[in-house]
Amino acid sequence: MIRDYTDEEARRALPCKWGSVDVDVLPAWVAEMDFALAPAVEEALLDAVRAGVTGYPAFDGVDDGGELGAAYAGFAARHWGHEIDPAWVIPTVDVTAGVRFVLDVLCDPAPMVMPVPAYAPQLEVAAVTGRERVDLVVSPDAERAELDLDRLDALLAAGARTLLLTQPHNPWGRVFTRAELEGVRDVVLRHGARVVSDEIHAPLVLPGAEHVPYLSLEGTADHAVAVVAASKAFNTPGLRCAQLVVPDPAARKALLDAPPVRNDSWSPLGVVAAVAAYTDGDAWLAALVERLDGNRALLGRLLAEQLPQARMRPLEGTFLAWLDLRGHGHADPAAVALERGRVRLAPGHDYQPGLEGHARLNIATSPERLTRIVERLGAALA
Amino acid sequence: MIRDYTDEEARRALPCKWGSVDVDVLPAWVAEMDFALAPAVEEALLDAVRAGVTGYPAFDGVDDGGELGAAYAGFAARHWGHEIDPAWVIPTVDVTAGVRFVLDVLCDPAPMVMPVPAYAPQLEVAAVTGRERVDLVVSPDAERAELDLDRLDALLAAGARTLLLTQPHNPWGRVFTRAELEGVRDVVLRHGARVVSDEIHAPLVLPGAEHVPYLSLEGTADHAVAVVAASKAFNTPGLRCAQLVVPDPAARKALLDAPPVRNDSWSPLGVVAAVAAYTDGDAWLAALVERLDGNRALLGRLLAEQLPQARMRPLEGTFLAWLDLRGHGHADPAAVALERGRVRLAPGHDYQPGLEGHARLNIATSPERLTRIVERLGAALA
Ligand SMILES: Cc1ncc(COP(=O)(O)O)c(C=O)c1O
Ligand SMILES: Cc1ncc(COP(=O)(O)O)c(C=O)c1O
Repeated sequence: MIRDYTDEEARRALPCKWGSVDVDVLPAWVAEMDFALAPAVEEALLDAVRAGVTGYPAFDGVDDGGELGAAYAGFAARHWGHEIDPAWVIPTVDVTAGVRFVLDVLCDPAPMVMPVPAYAPQLEVAAVTGRERVDLVVSPDAERAELDLDRLDALLAAGARTLLLTQPHNPWGRVFTRAELEGVRDVVLRHGARVVSDEIHAPLVLPGAEHVPYLSLEGTADHAVAVVAASKAFNTPGLRCAQLVVPDPAARKALLDAPPVRNDSWSPLGVVAAVAAYTDGDAWLAALVERLDGNRALLGRLLAEQLPQARMRPLEGTFLAWLDLRGHGHADPAAVALERGRVRLAPGHDYQPGLEGHARLNIATSPERLTRIVERLGAALA
Repeated sequence: MIRDYTDEEARRALPCKWGSVDVDVLPAWVAEMDFALAPAVEEALLDAVRAGVTGYPAFDGVDDGGELGAAYAGFAARHWGHEIDPAWVIPTVDVTAGVRFVLDVLCDPAPMVMPVPAYAPQLEVAAVTGRERVDLVVSPDAERAELDLDRLDALLAAGARTLLLTQPHNPWGRVFTRAELEGVRDVVLRHGARVVSDEIHAPLVLPGAEHVPYLSLEGTADHAVAVVAASKAFNTPGLRCAQLVVPDPAARKALLDAPPVRNDSWSPLGVVAAVAAYTDGDAWLAALVERLDGNRALLGRLLAEQLPQARMRPLEGTFLAWLDLRGHGHADPAAVALERGRVRLAPGHDYQPGLEGHARLNIATSPERLTRIVERLGAALA
């Protein structure tokens, strides 16, 4: 059910991931998958293009969630037993633009707490919205990547008013447990702060872990907004439609009443893709997760063989493996991998400025390519 | 060559324009056209969807303009004799987001001058970027809608640092002449101010007028950025890809070096549509302009018959007619048109808060529908 792109197909389909490298380089950096679209998504898109659905999206229907709200509500109920009102769902361009929008409109002009290492473009969202960023850094030596609740408590006590939570976490690979998230909630509630919960990777939780939507916890509706999307799991990040989930009526009103220039740029084709994915994508998604689970196991074996000094915490979700390569002695292993191994990884310092010896590896490809990638890394780094 | 949508097709294709009204209402408000896509654009999109071009666009190629820069440069040279370096072209989500981006990154934190009445969502872009908006208002009684250069001079002298020029102008319907634009340039140069020139309607100049790109005037390269798009002329505003044209190297560097969260949300399908439109769309565009020219003449005849008190300045460009309906005695003629006539117009006060007696009528439809629209307006308003 998961169809692998040939190299030639991938170069055409994925100009960011594949078009940015020389033909002899295997790209394993940006979070895109070397897989063809889910047939239901492709069909819906072709149908929409044939019908000319290329104009503005339906701004008027936005306050009751529309078709998109209903589709997401169905998906959340089926996958996580999370029952929401479709009217809580507000479309936005993409996840990061949605985070910016929520910060601009809802969040106090005060420091924002960010778990780090973090998805690189979001490292700048605090500054772009006029805020100081204060970090919850996970030590590279920690056995398990955890949110430091004592430090969160201290940062909120010192004046931070927003936590940008990422869960499942890229690049930590963590799927936070219910108990962990309840711990976060309790600290946040104590300070009357806000949570923006980036859950773009939620459909990509791997066997052994379970996604708990932050908004499914009791006592979160008043202070939290989730930012979700089908785009990462269904390989459509360029189609530009993420969703805000906003249970609090006052927050929803503030977002819906904001000037259009803040949030009117999502694409109707993104809506079409998201609705198809949420409605008709379950079987394909199950096959995808099975493939990723297989690749996760394969990666474990390959690392043991090829890069015995590499350290990787268990990958609980996402298709992005965070590798501690300090044991192999390179400050910038991604640069060495590219130069000597002809593999493009994402350098660890993109996620945590100054961090050495780390890189992120994208496993959403064929087992055969993944094997070649790690073999090349072994030859280049070991 | 221009294929009219049936009502049923239009309701499917254009959820914003047609989906927002009851089935007995004729929508003539938002700037979308009731015409099928240019075949070259549709084919290119279908091809791209079949190939899975739904991931991130090629961020890496952006600094040399890429395929999009080359396509726009060709179009500008053929249509306006405007020779640009393709590397001046930077993609952005859409025109209004592009204006915001340029204001945020390039423009001094000082008041912005705006010709008014103005495209409604852009009335708020100054405030969203933390600026005061100061207006160059055209009197509804003026014979011709002109930029008041004395007032522009005074506003720049008083501290404004940016002019948001719209040309061709929506909703004025004006295509500014070379002499008028040179007048603007001279005033701006005197004060060392900046121009952001929204030229989204440039391909929609009607016979009798000629589009002069602001950047084609001598002495503008240092202080101006144009924001352009194929999306209005080719009916693809939902595909999310506009272009900044930035001749000044320092300005270009500032925009390219900005944090991705400010400008990384354009869609690869928008790029595909724009490249196809700019490269293979000339014949279709010529047919479109012919159709709009015909509808302009038809509108003149219909207004004389049905709404003899209506005043309309010559429509030189765009498919948006600005109607002074004060002679018919309604403060909000769009509201009356909807209630009594079952026609949705765009109310004049959206473009100039407080303005009474005006409305904007979209003529990009079949002659038959345009006839019914004006007949209904006649019955409702006259
Ligand atoms: C945690 C996280 N948020 C957001 C994104 C990007 O989403 P978008 O392209 O919708 O901004 C990514 C991409 O990998 C991500 O890992
Ligand atoms: C002058 C002007 N600028 C911009 C736009 C909208 O462009 P976009 O949707 O790309 O922001 C319009 C839409 O009609 C317009 O008339």
